[in-house]
Amino acid sequence: MPLLVMKFGGTSVANLERIQNAAAKVKREVERGYDVIVIVSAMSGKTNELVGWVEQTSPLYDAREYDAVTSSGENVTAGLMALRLQEMDVPARSWQGWQVPILTTSAHGAARFIDIPRAHIDQKFAEGMKVAVVAGFQGVSPEGRITTLGRGGSDTTAVAFAAAFGAERCDIYTDVDGVYTTDPRIAKKARKLDKIAFEEMLELASLGAKVLQTRSVELAMRYKVRLRVVSSFEEIDENSGTLVCAEEDIMESKAVSGVAYSRDEAKMTLLAVADRPGIAAAIFGPLAEAGVNVDMIVQNISEEGHTDMTFSCPTDQVLRAQTALDAAKAKGSIAFQGLVADTDVAKISVVGIGMRSHAGVAATMFKALAAEGINIKVITTSEIKISVLIDRKYMELAVQALHDAFELDKAA
Amino acid sequence: MPLLVMKFGGTSVANLERIQNAAAKVKREVERGYDVIVIVSAMSGKTNELVGWVEQTSPLYDAREYDAVTSSGENVTAGLMALRLQEMDVPARSWQGWQVPILTTSAHGAARFIDIPRAHIDQKFAEGMKVAVVAGFQGVSPEGRITTLGRGGSDTTAVAFAAAFGAERCDIYTDVDGVYTTDPRIAKKARKLDKIAFEEMLELASLGAKVLQTRSVELAMRYKVRLRVVSSFEEIDENSGTLVCAEEDIMESKAVSGVAYSRDEAKMTLLAVADRPGIAAAIFGPLAEAGVNVDMIVQNISEEGHTDMTFSCPTDQVLRAQTALDAAKAKGSIAFQGLVADTDVAKISVVGIGMRSHAGVAATMFKALAAEGINIKVITTSEIKISVLIDRKYMELAVQALHDAFELDKAA
Repeated sequence: MPLLVMKFGGTSVANLERIQNAAAKVKREVERGYDVIVIVSAMSGKTNELVGWVEQTSPLYDAREYDAVTSSGENVTAGLMALRLQEMDVPARSWQGWQVPILTTSAHGAARFIDIPRAHIDQKFAEGMKVAVVAGFQGVSPEGRITTLGRGGSDTTAVAFAAAFGAERCDIYTDVDGVYTTDPRIAKKARKLDKIAFEEMLELASLGAKVLQTRSVELAMRYKVRLRVVSSFEEIDENSGTLVCAEEDIMESKAVSGVAYSRDEAKMTLLAVADRPGIAAAIFGPLAEAGVNVDMIVQNISEEGHTDMTFSCPTDQVLRAQTALDAAKAKGSIAFQGLVADTDVAKISVVGIGMRSHAGVAATMFKALAAEGINIKVITTSEIKISVLIDRKYMELAVQALHDAFELDKAA
Repeated sequence: MPLLVMKFGGTSVANLERIQNAAAKVKREVERGYDVIVIVSAMSGKTNELVGWVEQTSPLYDAREYDAVTSSGENVTAGLMALRLQEMDVPARSWQGWQVPILTTSAHGAARFIDIPRAHIDQKFAEGMKVAVVAGFQGVSPEGRITTLGRGGSDTTAVAFAAAFGAERCDIYTDVDGVYTTDPRIAKKARKLDKIAFEEMLELASLGAKVLQTRSVELAMRYKVRLRVVSSFEEIDENSGTLVCAEEDIMESKAVSGVAYSRDEAKMTLLAVADRPGIAAAIFGPLAEAGVNVDMIVQNISEEGHTDMTFSCPTDQVLRAQTALDAAKAKGSIAFQGLVADTDVAKISVVGIGMRSHAGVAATMFKALAAEGINIKVITTSEIKISVLIDRKYMELAVQALHDAFELDKAA
């Protein structure tokens, strides 16, 4: 029997009516001949309520108890979804993490999968169960304690089950109808993509397009799980949504698939750093230890033993970065004249696997920005992405200009 | 290390402040030198919310999924309580039913304990844990599904743990400060009892004094668990509350310990039943099958092959009883002339183990009711209880008159 994994996020199961709506979509797939594994999140707002209680009870909470409390929202949804399916004459059963069991590491709050043994669920399928409803976001540690995968972990649960059970596809039902060439709130001409490559999706996710959790895309890429993003609130057919798939499943591709942006970036520059071999490690080691998420890094040419070092990080980590660098300077492990923070910048990126075979993408990008009078402060490039930092006030204008320049409103 | 079981009901853990209050009481016992097992209910209102969701989702719900959903409230409280205790520097850990494991039958919604193996919790005590916070009301079936014990099951969980771990005492923290001679809302002179025998408590519980769940008292009696009812909202010392204990632990006892009442009783009379051997079984068999909780049964003398049969049941089961009896009549398994239902009655009972050795209790009771002009409709007696049905409008008056007649406002 072909098998499908369907994942419903918090807004898709926010109340009993939406659970019913989701169950109808599951039933449709059963009628099409699939065995289905459904992964559910907590009803929206529930996990936040539980997290709030934990933090009020114990600000420096024990992560094992945090996990025991915050995982309970998914259990409620799983039971209710199974009941609704039964009510629709679909043989269904709920599964909590420990019942499957979903074996994870003991890294509470950020656990990693060890194994998802198929025996229990396979046996129930063999006995006539058509749908296994599994509580997302959770697992069980070797010590028998409940673990959670971290926020957004239900996407990752879905992909892991699709990989473990050899699912034909993993459908992520959410409140948008797919992945867009850019944010439709900023560029009205934004177009839904029918397909996008794993690598592109990873770049877009890490750049702030919050449709899928980065870790779930990584896992899907590694195990070649066909991942589809579809809307919970529309009628779905074979061609709905956006399929996230391997590069070879995409016949034609344009140079650029999408434009992403990130509003909360800060640009930090260390002036006149005393340059020597190993200086980069001496700077970025302490930042990593302080938990600063450094993104772009640019080093200018060294003159007379000095260089300027620029990097970007989220705006709310600027203070932490400054503290860490001043401490390193005080300890003598690095030397620099000054530290300048510019918190009024945004990051704009163009992403596309087609970039590898299309020349002139960077030139087109810079020309489009220049035509709008937008100054570029920092540039970094990777194989399938070009990112720039610009003044934040030009962010929307830049996104629209690049969307036009690469003709993203037109299909390939 | 001596061990104590402490159980906190829904109102005692209704919010974070009350959980903190309860945790302070637990810490006090740890400081007195006890290892403690804490049994918690769901925050008040939570289980009702979950039950409501289940019933709306699936009116004829699958009991396994009902249990999976409704057990989650206790898990949240258990985690929060453990966190609060840790925050107070008390080494604590939460335990869900499957983690202990609390092994029960597969009778979902009304499961019975099979075993509570001590190994896991004992090991953690040996490693330095001082408090095990266990989610009440739940267990795990031989099939690995979550079970619940039925409403009020957390009291029963507490007594079962006290028995399994040989606890010195099982303290039930609730919103009243003990067991009273009668309902203080009806008789102002009602007095808190320092001690009450298991047998008496059982009669009072089954008569509607809702301090302890009947099943928990039965279990405590069987395993000789010293059970104490105390208030969550007062300072507690050794002499607080009411101790429910074996008869031999109570030095002196009066003839009557308490007066109980039940407002929602109906009196049903089958007129001119054709009498023959086995007729009682022919009447009460169908009632039992229809789920009617028959309480008192009185059969008048048989005359010329006919008798009148009277019984009482909850008022909301009258229709069900009538339907069952009419069906039995139509099938020819019983014959009677008429069926009269009186739904305006109340049951008043006096209870006391001292009754066994004190003569004249029934006479005193009937005299006190007669002095108030209260007519008695039905009488039944057991070894330690005398119950009467009277017109409901005299209920309060009857309770007060009996409380006075047996001088329950004075200690023995």
